[in-house]
Amino acid sequence: MASDAQQACFEAGIKFGALYHQFAGTPVSPDSAASLETAIEKSIENQPFCESVTVDILTEKLDTDHGYTELTGEYMEVEVVVDYEGREVVAEMAMQDGYPLMELASVE
Amino acid sequence: MASDAQQACFEAGIKFGALYHQFAGTPVSPDSAASLETAIEKSIENQPFCESVTVDILTEKLDTDHGYTELTGEYMEVEVVVDYEGREVVAEMAMQDGYPLMELASVE
Amino acid sequence: MASDAQQACFEAGIKFGALYHQFAGTPVSPDSAASLETAIEKSIENQPFCESVTVDILTEKLDTDHGYTELTGEYMEVEVVVDYEGREVVAEMAMQDGYPLMELASVE
Amino acid sequence: MASDAQQACFEAGIKFGALYHQFAGTPVSPDSAASLETAIEKSIENQPFCESVTVDILTEKLDTDHGYTELTGEYMEVEVVVDYEGREVVAEMAMQDGYPLMELASVE
Repeated sequence: MASDAQQACFEAGIKFGALYHQFAGTPVSPDSAASLETAIEKSIENQPFCESVTVDILTEKLDTDHGYTELTGEYMEVEVVVDYEGREVVAEMAMQDGYPLMELASVE
Repeated sequence: MASDAQQACFEAGIKFGALYHQFAGTPVSPDSAASLETAIEKSIENQPFCESVTVDILTEKLDTDHGYTELTGEYMEVEVVVDYEGREVVAEMAMQDGYPLMELASVE
Repeated sequence: MASDAQQACFEAGIKFGALYHQFAGTPVSPDSAASLETAIEKSIENQPFCESVTVDILTEKLDTDHGYTELTGEYMEVEVVVDYEGREVVAEMAMQDGYPLMELASVE
Repeated sequence: MASDAQQACFEAGIKFGALYHQFAGTPVSPDSAASLETAIEKSIENQPFCESVTVDILTEKLDTDHGYTELTGEYMEVEVVVDYEGREVVAEMAMQDGYPLMELASVE
């Protein structure tokens, strides 16, 4: 039987995988980035046990040679907070060595 | 060689397929629907030749038994306007016989 | 600092969220289901720490009124096995009360 | 009222937008590419008026620094054939100037 802390970590992982694979590929430009940040946050916050989602699209890094580009992990930083039966997990995603690394920041 | 009107129709189709398959499956609730409508509109409007996108998420139809549901064609109505070299195409999506039908409304 | 078992649970969650939100919405029919099962399994098995993915698309439940439908949780059962530094997690997804429930089956 | 040729172009566009935005972001490696090509082809061929879909994932171009990468337009070439009431449209996607260009190859 999984512990509440393990369940909280599982739920945090679900949110990250969902967020990334739902929205990767979305056309994004500096002008549209803010609305996309908000929609991603509010969308994933609907999921069970999700306390908060914070998405920062790095507009200064967006390739605008064609006016817009597709959202990938290269262009965003994300923090997700999950609460499962009182156990709180904070997880983060940021680029590391060219790979969008998702990791547990704290389990309390 | 394709005519400008045919190119405009092709571009309108791309926008619809992109919109639908990028955002289908997104968690959505009555509270988060407005931000998602805006993000979808601004995102797809980034694409070439796209004049405007209007998305109406039918919040009264959303299944809220679990607090939220996943976006599908059942829950949205969409209008896309494309302009290709002066030829304007309006295309629409709405449910018909249980299927989210995408169709050309006008080619001018 | 998260334990290895917690990390394993987090990784299992990522695989589930990724799998679901990457492939939800894919057009699927009884004839195309087998190729989609295989592609989903091999795709997600690429992810770090993922030992195996098993996807069963419930072809007999697919709505074929229009020849095909869109993949949702209603139509699939999934098992994911993750190994993180020797800690093995098995997680499963199946429908429960009309909701595609993802849950930890074992943490060892 | 749109002509059959215009409808065929619209339908071809839908297939391209759907294909791209459904599968962009999918984890892919040289080993898993063939199964993904097949699944994409069979999935999109389910859609109305779609005669054939051919997907070539450019495995030699895949970034394998982390064992796999995410599918984007950079890594694939696609041909779609649509038949609408006897009008056949062939459309193609390939990279041009760093942008995955979708274009009409023929309308007959």
